[in-house]
Amino acid sequence: MTTPDPLPRTGVIVTGPPRADAGDVATLAGFGVATVHEALGRVGYLGADLRARQDGLRTGGTAVTVLCRPGDNLMIHAAVEQCAPGDLLVVTTSSPCGDGLFGELFATALARRGVRGLVTTSGVRDLAELRAMGFGVWSGAVSAQGSVKASAGAVNVPVVIGGEIVRPGDAVLADDDGVAVVDRRRVPEAVSAARARTEREEQARRAFAGGELSLDRYGLRDVLSGLGVRYVPAADAGTP
Amino acid sequence: MTTPDPLPRTGVIVTGPPRADAGDVATLAGFGVATVHEALGRVGYLGADLRARQDGLRTGGTAVTVLCRPGDNLMIHAAVEQCAPGDLLVVTTSSPCGDGLFGELFATALARRGVRGLVTTSGVRDLAELRAMGFGVWSGAVSAQGSVKASAGAVNVPVVIGGEIVRPGDAVLADDDGVAVVDRRRVPEAVSAARARTEREEQARRAFAGGELSLDRYGLRDVLSGLGVRYVPAADAGTP
Amino acid sequence: MTTPDPLPRTGVIVTGPPRADAGDVATLAGFGVATVHEALGRVGYLGADLRARQDGLRTGGTAVTVLCRPGDNLMIHAAVEQCAPGDLLVVTTSSPCGDGLFGELFATALARRGVRGLVTTSGVRDLAELRAMGFGVWSGAVSAQGSVKASAGAVNVPVVIGGEIVRPGDAVLADDDGVAVVDRRRVPEAVSAARARTEREEQARRAFAGGELSLDRYGLRDVLSGLGVRYVPAADAGTP
Amino acid sequence: MTTPDPLPRTGVIVTGPPRADAGDVATLAGFGVATVHEALGRVGYLGADLRARQDGLRTGGTAVTVLCRPGDNLMIHAAVEQCAPGDLLVVTTSSPCGDGLFGELFATALARRGVRGLVTTSGVRDLAELRAMGFGVWSGAVSAQGSVKASAGAVNVPVVIGGEIVRPGDAVLADDDGVAVVDRRRVPEAVSAARARTEREEQARRAFAGGELSLDRYGLRDVLSGLGVRYVPAADAGTP
Amino acid sequence: MTTPDPLPRTGVIVTGPPRADAGDVATLAGFGVATVHEALGRVGYLGADLRARQDGLRTGGTAVTVLCRPGDNLMIHAAVEQCAPGDLLVVTTSSPCGDGLFGELFATALARRGVRGLVTTSGVRDLAELRAMGFGVWSGAVSAQGSVKASAGAVNVPVVIGGEIVRPGDAVLADDDGVAVVDRRRVPEAVSAARARTEREEQARRAFAGGELSLDRYGLRDVLSGLGVRYVPAADAGTP
Amino acid sequence: MTTPDPLPRTGVIVTGPPRADAGDVATLAGFGVATVHEALGRVGYLGADLRARQDGLRTGGTAVTVLCRPGDNLMIHAAVEQCAPGDLLVVTTSSPCGDGLFGELFATALARRGVRGLVTTSGVRDLAELRAMGFGVWSGAVSAQGSVKASAGAVNVPVVIGGEIVRPGDAVLADDDGVAVVDRRRVPEAVSAARARTEREEQARRAFAGGELSLDRYGLRDVLSGLGVRYVPAADAGTP
Repeated sequence: MTTPDPLPRTGVIVTGPPRADAGDVATLAGFGVATVHEALGRVGYLGADLRARQDGLRTGGTAVTVLCRPGDNLMIHAAVEQCAPGDLLVVTTSSPCGDGLFGELFATALARRGVRGLVTTSGVRDLAELRAMGFGVWSGAVSAQGSVKASAGAVNVPVVIGGEIVRPGDAVLADDDGVAVVDRRRVPEAVSAARARTEREEQARRAFAGGELSLDRYGLRDVLSGLGVRYVPAADAGTP
Repeated sequence: MTTPDPLPRTGVIVTGPPRADAGDVATLAGFGVATVHEALGRVGYLGADLRARQDGLRTGGTAVTVLCRPGDNLMIHAAVEQCAPGDLLVVTTSSPCGDGLFGELFATALARRGVRGLVTTSGVRDLAELRAMGFGVWSGAVSAQGSVKASAGAVNVPVVIGGEIVRPGDAVLADDDGVAVVDRRRVPEAVSAARARTEREEQARRAFAGGELSLDRYGLRDVLSGLGVRYVPAADAGTP
Repeated sequence: MTTPDPLPRTGVIVTGPPRADAGDVATLAGFGVATVHEALGRVGYLGADLRARQDGLRTGGTAVTVLCRPGDNLMIHAAVEQCAPGDLLVVTTSSPCGDGLFGELFATALARRGVRGLVTTSGVRDLAELRAMGFGVWSGAVSAQGSVKASAGAVNVPVVIGGEIVRPGDAVLADDDGVAVVDRRRVPEAVSAARARTEREEQARRAFAGGELSLDRYGLRDVLSGLGVRYVPAADAGTP
Repeated sequence: MTTPDPLPRTGVIVTGPPRADAGDVATLAGFGVATVHEALGRVGYLGADLRARQDGLRTGGTAVTVLCRPGDNLMIHAAVEQCAPGDLLVVTTSSPCGDGLFGELFATALARRGVRGLVTTSGVRDLAELRAMGFGVWSGAVSAQGSVKASAGAVNVPVVIGGEIVRPGDAVLADDDGVAVVDRRRVPEAVSAARARTEREEQARRAFAGGELSLDRYGLRDVLSGLGVRYVPAADAGTP
Repeated sequence: MTTPDPLPRTGVIVTGPPRADAGDVATLAGFGVATVHEALGRVGYLGADLRARQDGLRTGGTAVTVLCRPGDNLMIHAAVEQCAPGDLLVVTTSSPCGDGLFGELFATALARRGVRGLVTTSGVRDLAELRAMGFGVWSGAVSAQGSVKASAGAVNVPVVIGGEIVRPGDAVLADDDGVAVVDRRRVPEAVSAARARTEREEQARRAFAGGELSLDRYGLRDVLSGLGVRYVPAADAGTP
Repeated sequence: MTTPDPLPRTGVIVTGPPRADAGDVATLAGFGVATVHEALGRVGYLGADLRARQDGLRTGGTAVTVLCRPGDNLMIHAAVEQCAPGDLLVVTTSSPCGDGLFGELFATALARRGVRGLVTTSGVRDLAELRAMGFGVWSGAVSAQGSVKASAGAVNVPVVIGGEIVRPGDAVLADDDGVAVVDRRRVPEAVSAARARTEREEQARRAFAGGELSLDRYGLRDVLSGLGVRYVPAADAGTP
């Protein structure tokens, strides 16, 4: 077996990557970022630095990935053409950059193509207009700082955000808690796992609303005593 | 007089700590964080890193304190049982951690027990659900990153946040400006001081709305001249 | 020609600086921060650290500048008197400080004088009250931490924020994207440039909504090929 | 029993606090910060933000604590008089401040009084001179930014740094790993615990140098299997 | 062709991964981080947050990767056994953590096994001892904060640091400029490219030392004029 | 009098700016950053983010200023030609960027031209080589991340760093405490002020080494009592 030459990370636009099933991605998005992340064993969360820039939006799509140079949004222009309905644009930079590489004109073009939103480690601008359009953005910054269109990057190569790999065609989920990625090949498994977790959570919710303690429900009293944790009345604890 | 051995900081759950008077705490909460902090001589503010994760909520309660290991929420499970109506949960970690240690299931259990909200140096998740429930959270981060339940910490020991000590039973106040703590034994004094300050502020507000200058009202013209500050017409100042 | 001695940066309050034309500033504010910043060649943006502390407000005014010592708001008291209708207060500190140097009482006094809002690298408090008043604030922090009135600073001297110089009388624009400054003498030029850009953007918006690609509209395909960027079908790209 | 009124945090200089035994503190300092912190159950470390500003110095002393306003070093001047041989100065500010509140003239005065070094969450300046003098500093910043002497703070009140309380007279230890505090009343216990830990570490060091694995020495293979961790040959793991 | 199930990220220790050729890695290390990073097209740099914790050390090795939970170093214990001569340990955590997960006892065990150093996004302690041993560490923090051994992670799975993927067996290079990774399969190509670049740089160095300008040597005058950059005598530039 | 059109900030290279007197700058550099900053009334310090990347170097020169785009060092190439003996290169970027825009080849070219060192808000690489050459660098980061040469910036326009304006030809001083700027026209005044301050400090140093207290020397006991600070014996202070 021969190992193929690794793809160069810049200077390439990959066309037509396989994508996760659109129906599965929509189902998965409904469960929310935290539930899916937990259901898969606490993987795939892209980190607390990516913040929702609007309230109450929950979405998901298949990733079209973009790698830009700092301060340069040329490759986002190239990425628009690669987007199809149900996609979600995922942008990062070759070194940290909070400039406003993305604004309302891009959102107009993407909305026309059926794109579900934007995730970027960089900055966004035209925030009021984006909110008015209902185009969801999750970003590392809000910034009006403009950019140039002068340097090569890449479209649809694997990128890494918050310690997680995002490959083109992966499912990307986003809501008020942030953003998570699910490997394209694990999406069906994720749907099952998230559904099971949601059912367990619903039962727990009812139990907790009825007064049951998680200490009892999850058997944590044994964990506490196994760790040597002991109960001390305040009168014996000596704090004022 | 003998000095008692200091309580170990981990491996202990202190039960039944004395609490500030619930009525006083409610009164104090009504004045708001900034006013109480100022009225007591600018102490007790827990710092700008603790951010309100919803708009327009103003609350207060008696502290149940939790010390967790980073990435581990076991002790929050233990703390729920220690909570009584009128309490407010205060969580920190033994070293900095922004993971989502707290979510909607905890809030469900706490709301059932009459708890007023959550303050945590760590992260929260299920933000949309928490907002829908009206359960107030003030946190250092929003993050879906999940946690384990494997390490001993403590409940109801003194913790320190933003350079201030929070002891179990202390009054903790929270609004859009952040979070403040008032030592349990100073709560009555704080109520008086905040009331007096509020009255002074109301008078100042009317004066300023009527055009009076704080320079005059507070006698600051003397301070300025004492510091050698002088007035220079722009024409003499030489800036373009 | 003799070069005048530079003005000392502290200990001075400059009165009556020339201001940009109020009508022009209002016109400019309507275009928004991002558009004006771009139209002038990507200068004047005060950086992503200055965040709007309310949603959906767009304003502008002529700068009254304030330089404070950290933790000390004496000079803001002095600055109120220098404010006229159509001004916007711009506050920074001689070294980084996130304390709540500004709150609702100041806003009451400024609103009475017709001031359009506050921009500060420091912190603001009384956030709920400020929002209820509709007094716009753009700040580096939200903090209830109080301040003293003990040290000399300056009013209406040039200050620098986010790498940009703000001079008294300059036009300062603010919206959800942040804050930008336009040199007083460039305001008429900025109005023309922003108007032209807005028209170009409106045409582009219609084109993109109709499906045209920015790659074609801006001639970027040549840029990509000039940089050696090539298109690779996913089947040949070797990523799983 | 009556509860005494809590001491106000500002406006007070406490004289003659009881101090930990100088001999014990010297012994403790010899073990190093990491060892003492571990030996006491992982408490007392003042956090990674306090950095040694010289290499290879290991020291310890009894705390004289100082609380300053940001940008103001008046209380350090007051604290010098409270210092005795074997003390170590611990400075923090009422809100975050990185200004250079401490420099070589202070060090000259302190060295004359037999003070062992400085720990500050704020900044230091005259770094070259401090290193030449051999006066150890652990600080949150290096900064030449000067300060004023205008606001009240406190000397020898409890302060909190990195989530830990430092009381006057406590043992404070510092080396290349940072700074730790040991409650004055726990110093003898800390000496015993650190000595025992050092002996265990010396045995472990010899074992590891001889090839023994900590997996075996500490019984961690059982922990791993209890957590379900399994060994997989690379050929079966599927990563390229 | 069937796609294998992706390996779970936690709960697994992969044994015997293929490694880059030791001789090639040593050669590559000699060129230095910056040169190799540039020679491969500006990829592989692990970011400015990873700092050398000693001066003047330049090394390289084949990666043994470790994924820990925050505040927990259990998997480093497991990783020691997987290390062979010429390896370099690469540790990260499932969410950000600056605690001191690594110290001198680990270094003793690793040095015995011929390991070349440590790279970690987390913290290191025992810095003085590590420097005295000559064991190189590149880390995100220095911290004495201790850890537990309670949670499953992984050894020898791909990890991502600073936006770059590090796979077990990859070449990892480290010096005063930071850390870079080279894909195992690209190491021979990297040696050739770095050698060629080094030769070009040596020629450029001689030219620049002789007074030639990079503007001329690299043909940048045309780039400048193509971008519309123009030369203006200071007398015409109007700045004071 | 007509106001000249302001110079555009990008796309221009200003040649032959007037420079501060070389002898004066050398004299000033000898006083050190902290002393000059204080002597001029605490202005001109460029902030704690600019760190010396070597120990014990103290230098100064006349500024050649460079404004780059993030990730792009084209304008540094252009700036080399504008450098003369006694200059010091000052580089910033139009938005924050920590990439390694400067390395040993640039230093070789600059050393040949008699340039005294580099100050940059961005990153430097080849740190080992720069130290070996004795070429002083003060930077916001150390990073091997490479850059492109694709975008217009400016040379010898005013830039702002850390809230201070640096104009071409100004005196820039750097040592272990950081970097300070002195307006070209104030250099003679600064020499006098620094000399006077140094003499006062020398007298204070002798006094403090002899045991005098700064409380007495600077009349601070009156300030303390004026602020209401009172002395309390520990026995009356109630802290344990």
